[in-house]
Amino acid sequence: MQATLVYGPGDVRVEEVPDPTLREPTDAVVRVLGSGICEGDLVLGQWTPASEQGVRFGHEFFGVVEDIGSDVSGLTIGDLVVAPYIWADNTCDFCADGLHASCRQAGRWGTAGVDGAQGEAVRVPYAQGTLVPLPLGEDSALLASVLTLSDVLPTAYHGAVKAGVGPRTSVTVIGDGAIALLAVLAARRLGAERILLMSGHKGGADLGREFGATDVIAEHGQEGVARTRELTDGRGTHVVLECAGTRQALETAFGVVRDNGVISRAGLVQYAEGPIGRDMILRNITLTGGAASPRVYIEHLLPDILDGTIEPGRVFDRTVSLAEVPDSYRAMAAGEALKVLIRL
Amino acid sequence: MQATLVYGPGDVRVEEVPDPTLREPTDAVVRVLGSGICEGDLVLGQWTPASEQGVRFGHEFFGVVEDIGSDVSGLTIGDLVVAPYIWADNTCDFCADGLHASCRQAGRWGTAGVDGAQGEAVRVPYAQGTLVPLPLGEDSALLASVLTLSDVLPTAYHGAVKAGVGPRTSVTVIGDGAIALLAVLAARRLGAERILLMSGHKGGADLGREFGATDVIAEHGQEGVARTRELTDGRGTHVVLECAGTRQALETAFGVVRDNGVISRAGLVQYAEGPIGRDMILRNITLTGGAASPRVYIEHLLPDILDGTIEPGRVFDRTVSLAEVPDSYRAMAAGEALKVLIRL
Repeated sequence: MQATLVYGPGDVRVEEVPDPTLREPTDAVVRVLGSGICEGDLVLGQWTPASEQGVRFGHEFFGVVEDIGSDVSGLTIGDLVVAPYIWADNTCDFCADGLHASCRQAGRWGTAGVDGAQGEAVRVPYAQGTLVPLPLGEDSALLASVLTLSDVLPTAYHGAVKAGVGPRTSVTVIGDGAIALLAVLAARRLGAERILLMSGHKGGADLGREFGATDVIAEHGQEGVARTRELTDGRGTHVVLECAGTRQALETAFGVVRDNGVISRAGLVQYAEGPIGRDMILRNITLTGGAASPRVYIEHLLPDILDGTIEPGRVFDRTVSLAEVPDSYRAMAAGEALKVLIRL
Repeated sequence: MQATLVYGPGDVRVEEVPDPTLREPTDAVVRVLGSGICEGDLVLGQWTPASEQGVRFGHEFFGVVEDIGSDVSGLTIGDLVVAPYIWADNTCDFCADGLHASCRQAGRWGTAGVDGAQGEAVRVPYAQGTLVPLPLGEDSALLASVLTLSDVLPTAYHGAVKAGVGPRTSVTVIGDGAIALLAVLAARRLGAERILLMSGHKGGADLGREFGATDVIAEHGQEGVARTRELTDGRGTHVVLECAGTRQALETAFGVVRDNGVISRAGLVQYAEGPIGRDMILRNITLTGGAASPRVYIEHLLPDILDGTIEPGRVFDRTVSLAEVPDSYRAMAAGEALKVLIRL
């Protein structure tokens, strides 16, 4: 079959790889119908050291169950399913606490001999705990929105939930990508009336307004901080959803968060250390966020997608074939595409 | 009058200084009856650059109102009062939100031409917003406990409140000083049933048990982390109250906090940057804490002191005169005294 591999920073290729087959009785094999390119893929792609064998990529997908191990129940061959960005057993003590990212069996697609999601098929470990069957047909127009349940929507939503966003919360969202836009959607759905989106991406800004942003701030850095404070009586917002992952974005977050407020991070961060010294303490600022449990949020958010209450799939502004994946990484990195949907 | 000055790292002296008088109509002058030496004084004392004029020290005190400006109401000459570790107007938008540390008029004792608390008298800015009258006599045995309301008890309590400590919370407290012991007391009062105190201070450990610690862990660093995890099914505690303020203590906190847990910092921190990268996010850890509003907690906790429910004043294990302050800084730094009460 064909699959995406990264051979070093920015070196993305689609090549022939072995077809997946069942290895463990807890496995399933899924034929991929749709996969996404995540802004996290761009970061991870840049971090991937050069190698001769390459690394399999992609962690968002939906598809059809083609084979099932003997220990898997609750799934049938032919089921249309969506998969979270990590696999998990959904039975351990961490999963029971809704912490699938900390699951004792958790793993990432493309590691440990498991396929990446940007390919024609995937062997799924702990399939019963990982895959969620969908009440949809393979040609449903809702599948783009469903695909956001793999990662970007739960990631954004979890950031807002961890921050305690509610009706009396003012929110700044920082970021140019899909996670930031879905953080706007999440904040709106959780009741926030004031949502400031700091984004320099023109198409993203328009969609951000449609998702619920009350103000869009195109300035970055100190100018963006000054503009945000102007809009909030000088005090900043109760919550900042930091979806860019850079050190500069984190510093902007500290600049726009209100004293006693919360900075919640959604998505990969690109730094190891941050400014958490005396100023953060004097100002009573909380830093939170984390790896979401898609299974938890899929149960919560899939009904809203099915009935049209939310349309998170609108973050996909380009649909491509598998062969077009390398150019799509480039296009997303260049800001030409916001988020790319790969249809197979 | 006599007052404490620091002339450089570790250079603490008691010397003659001018008597305070009213300067603003919002001032009061308080004759100090009792003051504390805080573990924060030791850190700040080490940070104080050498100077010829010295810096006034001390930020915990109770005393008698001797003079009152024309704009101050609610106070009478002769009132016995306790003062928070900062002054504040108690009327601005931040104070209205319970954020007196962010008050638009907030200031620290010993700065901006205002006296430090380790002296015979103090000019108090914004006296009406700052001082809290006490229903006690000058010889009350409860005054040591009342003095903890200036700083260490609200600081510790606020750390536990920000962390959301409650009946189903397991808590690790890290620190050898009074703030750590009072964090144990706070966690117990908020209902935590499991409280692990990581403290190498023998007398502190005994008092920690009396305040509610269910386990005392004398080991530090990796050994302490391993011991704590042994005691908590390998997963650590829901909350860590980090009261030591060192980078090593913060790293220990990350080692003993449960995934999805909260690290809350109480007291001064001695670092500017910390490890808040990918591991913190994958593990869904929240970092919080901050400068407490003593006024808020005084209203909340003074009744418990008056009726004997809590006895936070037990953290004072040495009572000295003003002349003995320099040696008392040394004794606390050497671990010979846990916390020193200065009686005047």
